[in-house]
Amino acid sequence: MAENWATSASGQALGIDLHVDVPGPSGLRRGLTDALREAVRGGRLAPGTRLPSSRTLAADLGIARNTVADAYADLVAEGWLTARQGSGTRVAERPVEAPRPAPGPSRRAAGGLRHDLHPGTPDLASFPRAEWLKAARRALNAAPNDALGYGDPRGRPELRTALAGYLARARGVHADPERIVICAGFVQGLMLLGEVLHARGVRDVAVESYGLDAHWNVLTRPGLRSRPLPLDELGADIGQLDAWSGVGAALLTPAHQFPLGVPLHPDRRAAAVDWARRTGGLILEDDYDGEFRYDRQPVGALQGLAPDRVVYLGTASKSLAPGLRLGWMVLPASVSDEVIEAKGAGDWSCGVLDQLTLAEFLDSGAYDRHLRAARLRYRRRRDQLVTALAEHAPAVRATGIAAGLHAVLQLPPGTEQSVIRAAAWQRLGVAGLSSFRHESAARAEGRDALVVGYGTPADHAWAGALEMLCRVLP
Amino acid sequence: MAENWATSASGQALGIDLHVDVPGPSGLRRGLTDALREAVRGGRLAPGTRLPSSRTLAADLGIARNTVADAYADLVAEGWLTARQGSGTRVAERPVEAPRPAPGPSRRAAGGLRHDLHPGTPDLASFPRAEWLKAARRALNAAPNDALGYGDPRGRPELRTALAGYLARARGVHADPERIVICAGFVQGLMLLGEVLHARGVRDVAVESYGLDAHWNVLTRPGLRSRPLPLDELGADIGQLDAWSGVGAALLTPAHQFPLGVPLHPDRRAAAVDWARRTGGLILEDDYDGEFRYDRQPVGALQGLAPDRVVYLGTASKSLAPGLRLGWMVLPASVSDEVIEAKGAGDWSCGVLDQLTLAEFLDSGAYDRHLRAARLRYRRRRDQLVTALAEHAPAVRATGIAAGLHAVLQLPPGTEQSVIRAAAWQRLGVAGLSSFRHESAARAEGRDALVVGYGTPADHAWAGALEMLCRVLP
Repeated sequence: MAENWATSASGQALGIDLHVDVPGPSGLRRGLTDALREAVRGGRLAPGTRLPSSRTLAADLGIARNTVADAYADLVAEGWLTARQGSGTRVAERPVEAPRPAPGPSRRAAGGLRHDLHPGTPDLASFPRAEWLKAARRALNAAPNDALGYGDPRGRPELRTALAGYLARARGVHADPERIVICAGFVQGLMLLGEVLHARGVRDVAVESYGLDAHWNVLTRPGLRSRPLPLDELGADIGQLDAWSGVGAALLTPAHQFPLGVPLHPDRRAAAVDWARRTGGLILEDDYDGEFRYDRQPVGALQGLAPDRVVYLGTASKSLAPGLRLGWMVLPASVSDEVIEAKGAGDWSCGVLDQLTLAEFLDSGAYDRHLRAARLRYRRRRDQLVTALAEHAPAVRATGIAAGLHAVLQLPPGTEQSVIRAAAWQRLGVAGLSSFRHESAARAEGRDALVVGYGTPADHAWAGALEMLCRVLP
Repeated sequence: MAENWATSASGQALGIDLHVDVPGPSGLRRGLTDALREAVRGGRLAPGTRLPSSRTLAADLGIARNTVADAYADLVAEGWLTARQGSGTRVAERPVEAPRPAPGPSRRAAGGLRHDLHPGTPDLASFPRAEWLKAARRALNAAPNDALGYGDPRGRPELRTALAGYLARARGVHADPERIVICAGFVQGLMLLGEVLHARGVRDVAVESYGLDAHWNVLTRPGLRSRPLPLDELGADIGQLDAWSGVGAALLTPAHQFPLGVPLHPDRRAAAVDWARRTGGLILEDDYDGEFRYDRQPVGALQGLAPDRVVYLGTASKSLAPGLRLGWMVLPASVSDEVIEAKGAGDWSCGVLDQLTLAEFLDSGAYDRHLRAARLRYRRRRDQLVTALAEHAPAVRATGIAAGLHAVLQLPPGTEQSVIRAAAWQRLGVAGLSSFRHESAARAEGRDALVVGYGTPADHAWAGALEMLCRVLP
């Protein structure tokens, strides 16, 4: 059964394809090891097969005997071969591997869109690559060695300090660097908060009745239930929180409701803080695009009103790029220890190099310069969108405040699905408002609308995208 | 109760500290907004206080009335002030904030060590900063825009492809880029696997009786139990797996047991694969330092023997730096969908810039060059350690193979704790073997030892660290 290799004339005849990358004995040894391993793996050398002695194979191949002996030893150590006193070197007995299935198709189909106006992504073509690389060079050259080690689960102190200053200045956030936690984007922060809330015994979290189901699902995973607050032109109906019992937290987008685009009315901001103070509840403030306001100064974060009851969540995903996977939480003292402990236990850390680079980006003023340019770009696009609608689609109206990277286009009742289909036909990517509705929320009559991410296209593609959008609108 | 501001002569008298960063109306407006917000926040303006009319305050401060009106509007929108027809602008009623506790001490005490020989961290001073920055520049300049967007939960295809080639070549891993998942270090990978195993109904995972409790705790969190396999000079006692029923996976360090430093014997490698095939169990192969072997070619990964039953886990934490938070899993087809789905749901992604940089680092050969230099450095240190022991501490013997970044120093029975105390007295950081014992493992008699991380010090500090170590040894 076990054929004896020593009877064969040469390695080649036995199915070895000896390929040497690096000249010299170590290259030969590696080449022979690889070739023999492949021959075993591919089944050309069956289990139990006795291999030629190292002397014989070396002579066959015209290489040194030690090289063969070393290659055999490598493969014995790895478990491909066995070496027994008196029985020589054999291919190890093991069940034959099942053939590998062919690799499946790529997980993300390219989509084949001509233009993409889905909301959620900024203009990636305007990522400040050169400035970022400059900051990375300065940051890495200045970093102490121990910055490259295992670190604080909260993230690098340089970034937490830079963010505390920036958030106080730009967003009115009351931020202590000791209670800032850097996370891999908003969702990771929400995931940690969901875990901590659940561990505290919270079961229900209020959310807005329109939003992202990916966020609601993050809350559901540890066992929380998301309950949708009705929305109107003043934002989320905070009064509903008192009607429900047992809601332990509320996830809100106060500066610019996503996707409806309204800010939370001052009275409701006060009511939300009041609810949190009265009940011991937490407000999770998702400030995803708070820096982008075009009609006035940005409204400061709700967190500034009640740093003891609000978790502030910010992100670089809209201001710079989602690919950085950098977000931050500013935590009230009452939950900071639990959240930091949960983060440390799971080692959910972000790379320090990007953290140090963002700190340098903030401190050097490059972040502010980038935001000013981005604000001008997105404001211009929004103005062009509104103008184009007035001219080419008078039945459609952009609602929500002039802010952020997306607009809500109100459609004539009953037309949302047909517009989406028309867009798909043109290979224009665009989202219907109904796709953002919470499954437990009442279906709103007459809320046919598109949510248009005007931030997404590159500058050169924007005019074409806008033209295509107008063509598919009623 | 609510004092009327309008009676005061000037903003200054009311406790406003008007500070203007940027000249011009917008700087003034922001300065006034900040000053008023601080006055409210700090309690100098009590809830209910009526503010002077914008006309009055503007005259007091010598600024334009619109600037004051805008600042009031900002603060109304944020919720600090309220504006009611007929009642003017007042400070919003809200419960007084509790005073903030003083920030606690930093979570990681500096430790005040003169030398640190704890295992687990490579020489951070030799991180190839210049080469890394060069690779980052090439990588970011070459990256398509959409690389900066939300991406595949598995990580960037550039890195997965580069790793597949590297791991096949250097570690004998059978890697399909489609089933490689980039994660934020080993622990994040283990966390995902723990979740998936638990969801599949697995309750017991075998581990090695000496290891890192941080890893065992990661398995415990989703509800798994870790059961320690006895260890001897051939590595983990794989036969024990058959004696236990219901073990669904085994976490092993086959190339170089951590911390004992022995490789898993070829027979046990075969037995582990055989166990996995017979029972449908999974082997989780922690290949944390497989590239560092000084006495011979590295032994290939166990995964190469059974890609269908072994999850291979690798990391850049020892080869480059833990601060990168970059690790990778090579998944068998049977679990890849579940793991990738779990990763996607939680958005546990790593920043793309470091991923692209590492891909470039691998493809350009810079990684191989760095590893060659690192191998020489660590090998020299290990040799110096062994020589120094022979000369200065003949009662102590380094055991385990010449590999990795740590050595186990066998001490005379009963001396481990006193040596640790002597080291602490000298402010030398070093770990006792007993601190790595699994709590359910039998206490081994005569296993007094130190685990010495000779990789950790910078080159210039190594000689001093070694000298100090010899001084505290019996």
